[in-house]
Amino acid sequence: MKYGIAAFPSKKLQDLANSYRKRYDTKYAKVPPHITLKEPFELKDEELDQVLEEIRHAASELNPFKLKVVKFSTFYPGTNTIYMKIEENKDLTVLHQRLNSGKLDFGMEHPFVPHITIGQDMMYDEMQDVIGRLKMERIAHEETIDRFSLLYQLEDGTWTAYETFKLGK
Amino acid sequence: MKYGIAAFPSKKLQDLANSYRKRYDTKYAKVPPHITLKEPFELKDEELDQVLEEIRHAASELNPFKLKVVKFSTFYPGTNTIYMKIEENKDLTVLHQRLNSGKLDFGMEHPFVPHITIGQDMMYDEMQDVIGRLKMERIAHEETIDRFSLLYQLEDGTWTAYETFKLGK
Repeated sequence: MKYGIAAFPSKKLQDLANSYRKRYDTKYAKVPPHITLKEPFELKDEELDQVLEEIRHAASELNPFKLKVVKFSTFYPGTNTIYMKIEENKDLTVLHQRLNSGKLDFGMEHPFVPHITIGQDMMYDEMQDVIGRLKMERIAHEETIDRFSLLYQLEDGTWTAYETFKLGK
Repeated sequence: MKYGIAAFPSKKLQDLANSYRKRYDTKYAKVPPHITLKEPFELKDEELDQVLEEIRHAASELNPFKLKVVKFSTFYPGTNTIYMKIEENKDLTVLHQRLNSGKLDFGMEHPFVPHITIGQDMMYDEMQDVIGRLKMERIAHEETIDRFSLLYQLEDGTWTAYETFKLGK
């Protein structure tokens, strides 16, 4: 089964992200707006318990993190994706490292660029037009995230939350 | 903010439910297939912590429950909804009662009929056609559910999982 780990921001930020996603994100209906903390990975049923234990252990040792959206950006020319860029900070970096090392090291395809996707699989012209407009907008949003979720993917591509983990004691 | 409590069945049962939902359920893209344990209710931000505490307390005192799908059925003439009917059992009934009484009693619009919706807002003729065919199919699925989730609703009607609760110690 395919799993992934993500953090969901506040309703306010999710609503803002969705105002773009409904128009520009082909995966809008598959999962709520999120920050990916661990790329999708495969687990056999019998491996789940040990991984859960490891994630629980990691979460308890880590801190809630500041989520600060600083600007809109794009992964172009890698992919025609636009996103809200999240400022890196130590708590977030450590959380990402912890979820991708040791017993939780299942390989990473991409370097960690903390973000909330708001558009993907866009045509080049539309992407340039949208990011051009977004670059002129001011965005300043800050909140604290104190939890993250392990999700699994259904056959139709949608994600269901399996368990939430609180950061810290 | 609007919250609700639901349990998500196994991927296998969700995939089966979605094979119908993608055609017949107007809320297909809003939330994964689920059993509603507590109807949507409003909470102010400052009320959340106390309710979370109460739900955690309830979950710890209760048992995982058997989910046995026994047949397809419909809420017609109440609504043009079709669903997988879940056999009632004591653990499930007690869980539902506990999540809807005492400090968690926020009123209920419907009596508790445990189910997984697979079609809603259907035209009468299509609903009759579909339920007629489904009544002739055999369905026998049983599993144990050991957790449930508190969800909140975004402005576009989609639901995000806020926290999962394990049933039992």
